[in-house]
Amino acid sequence: MISKKYSSMLNNTSIIREFAQYASKRAAEIGAENVFNYTIGNPSVPTTDDFNKGLIDLIQNEDSLTLHGYSPTLTIYSVRKAVADSLNRRFGMEYVPEDIFMTSGAAGALAHAIRCVTEPGDEVITFAPYFPEYVPYVDGTGAVLKVVPADITSFQINFDAFLEMMNPNVQAILINSPNNPSGIVYSTETITHLAQILTEKQEEYGHDIYLISDEPYREIVFEGTDSPFISKFYDNTICCYSFSKSLSLPGERIGYVAVNPKCKDAELIINMCGQVSRFTGHNCPSSLIQLGVAKVLDETSDLSIYEKNKNILYKELTAMGYECVEPGGTFYMFPKTPIADANEFCNMTAHELDLILVPGDSFMCPGHMRLAYCTTTDMVERSLPLFEKAIKMCK
Amino acid sequence: MISKKYSSMLNNTSIIREFAQYASKRAAEIGAENVFNYTIGNPSVPTTDDFNKGLIDLIQNEDSLTLHGYSPTLTIYSVRKAVADSLNRRFGMEYVPEDIFMTSGAAGALAHAIRCVTEPGDEVITFAPYFPEYVPYVDGTGAVLKVVPADITSFQINFDAFLEMMNPNVQAILINSPNNPSGIVYSTETITHLAQILTEKQEEYGHDIYLISDEPYREIVFEGTDSPFISKFYDNTICCYSFSKSLSLPGERIGYVAVNPKCKDAELIINMCGQVSRFTGHNCPSSLIQLGVAKVLDETSDLSIYEKNKNILYKELTAMGYECVEPGGTFYMFPKTPIADANEFCNMTAHELDLILVPGDSFMCPGHMRLAYCTTTDMVERSLPLFEKAIKMCK
Repeated sequence: MISKKYSSMLNNTSIIREFAQYASKRAAEIGAENVFNYTIGNPSVPTTDDFNKGLIDLIQNEDSLTLHGYSPTLTIYSVRKAVADSLNRRFGMEYVPEDIFMTSGAAGALAHAIRCVTEPGDEVITFAPYFPEYVPYVDGTGAVLKVVPADITSFQINFDAFLEMMNPNVQAILINSPNNPSGIVYSTETITHLAQILTEKQEEYGHDIYLISDEPYREIVFEGTDSPFISKFYDNTICCYSFSKSLSLPGERIGYVAVNPKCKDAELIINMCGQVSRFTGHNCPSSLIQLGVAKVLDETSDLSIYEKNKNILYKELTAMGYECVEPGGTFYMFPKTPIADANEFCNMTAHELDLILVPGDSFMCPGHMRLAYCTTTDMVERSLPLFEKAIKMCK
Repeated sequence: MISKKYSSMLNNTSIIREFAQYASKRAAEIGAENVFNYTIGNPSVPTTDDFNKGLIDLIQNEDSLTLHGYSPTLTIYSVRKAVADSLNRRFGMEYVPEDIFMTSGAAGALAHAIRCVTEPGDEVITFAPYFPEYVPYVDGTGAVLKVVPADITSFQINFDAFLEMMNPNVQAILINSPNNPSGIVYSTETITHLAQILTEKQEEYGHDIYLISDEPYREIVFEGTDSPFISKFYDNTICCYSFSKSLSLPGERIGYVAVNPKCKDAELIINMCGQVSRFTGHNCPSSLIQLGVAKVLDETSDLSIYEKNKNILYKELTAMGYECVEPGGTFYMFPKTPIADANEFCNMTAHELDLILVPGDSFMCPGHMRLAYCTTTDMVERSLPLFEKAIKMCK
């Protein structure tokens, strides 16, 4: 019989997707150049030449059975070593290959990390605003996602609300910095305070609490932003990384779990990742893609357009009267909507101006809207008069 | 806290892996040429030049954002269409793209298919001998795997035992033909009989029963073997395919789910696959690899060495006195061990002759041993005197 769990999910349509589909429909009707589509967080710059050249080199010169053969259960050792070395070089860490497990992007990394450190029924705490896919990601593990309300003045952590929600059933804290949708980067002060609380709570509850750090936007940080390497601050940190944004490879599904070498169970957790894979049908990312990224670990695509677009939008929108916390990274910003009902505002701009924004309700933060400005600068500039019209229509 | 479920799995060592590790250890000690390693089912022939050329063409000529961009939730439409067209051309079917979902190999395909058609606690029936990873694959979905004892005279289906185990709680039947480990291909008679029973039982129980057909060895069938296309015989069939063996791409993790177009819920099941992915962190195979296989769907690697090795081994081993059902495909054979205790026999040949075989107990079929002859023909020929010694040592 058809599974009730998965068939019922088909009725829960995603609001992000609805707005994105409306943008596509309008593009077909009036031409893509007349639609101002800020809905989807898809990288807009190509991957690096070095990455593509590296793939071709592998295909032409590596033995077929080695290149396309099974990865070991714990993924390709030389790739794990290259990732550890790169993290050590860049962030002054002491990872060994045994701390690294290659995954199908950050989604795969989170699926493994959460399963390793929770039992069904345990609580995982995250902070609004947050990526809505965290709901199925955590639900799929059997754990329960609890959400700390946003601090909308800074989009740093609302520590008072967090402390109220902490209890001995909390086994993991899930954070995402630089953050989708706010674009905010957690400061050294925020991470230090969080680490201090978790250390105290571990002691108080008598069990480990893991900090699961979802970092696909780590490489997209703007000038002057304090951007600490999170694993440095707390031993029980599991970093979940993806190359989707840094190398513009979202379709290749490549990322990793890196367990802090100071975590006493680091190697055990990585070994368990190999067991989780058997349960989920994951069984390693593509071997070609694993070997391909290992050649370009210290590189990124040219990400400068994201900062350029942010600078224009932040300056112009705030001048028009929009209230917004300035993003420190990513390719998102998350202004307040001029009226309290973000759905009403976003429906209005979509239908009257072909300016397609996503209401903050999707990210558990009403009264805001997400702009994904991984678009051309031309589109950003041509959209400015529409933002001006929109705010005037609300007065 | 560390998950008990996944950490306890680390203590369940796989016997296949233990023998394979012993073979590697001996190869390091005495040289690989002196170890006769029949343990691992890893393709021994390269992929096709066309596949590698197709990848290079994509990398050099396709736009980076298209090539490496996110796949749609239901995987790349042009690839799904190419798979449907190829199946229709080759097997006289009428698949549409909406019946196809690309997966990370057969493991990914099974993870999706089983979740779509069972609820936790439902029974899934399979037939001994079977691939031992079916245990975690099914367990991970929440369903319960039940095993029908082998018919060791033919390794077709033991229908009497099957009928005894059928009950209204059975929602899916999992078959694997051509079979790992027996090498046997289910005949038209077997599949017809199975389809007839399932049709009757659907009527009797008042609910659908799905036939999940795991077909990674579909392209490796030997001369003269009756090899029906299973989905033709039963409407509620979900074909789970992998290109791992046909194109020698096990590391690239690429396969698909194809739901029989005559299944009334075909499109619903495929849509649900997109939801299962969100729960497991699967989220599509590599886009480059999806597009790459779509160019070579009617091709295979040169698979002739597997039949050549089978012919030598079957002829020589049976002449020595080994009892064996002749394989119709795959790169496995599954003879009786000369003594009843297969573990004892395989330990003896490993330690005294460096002839490394896997005991049938791993496949829920004691008194047998699996030979994975995806090796060089030279190794096969040089191993023959050792098989002769081994059977004499048992007399």
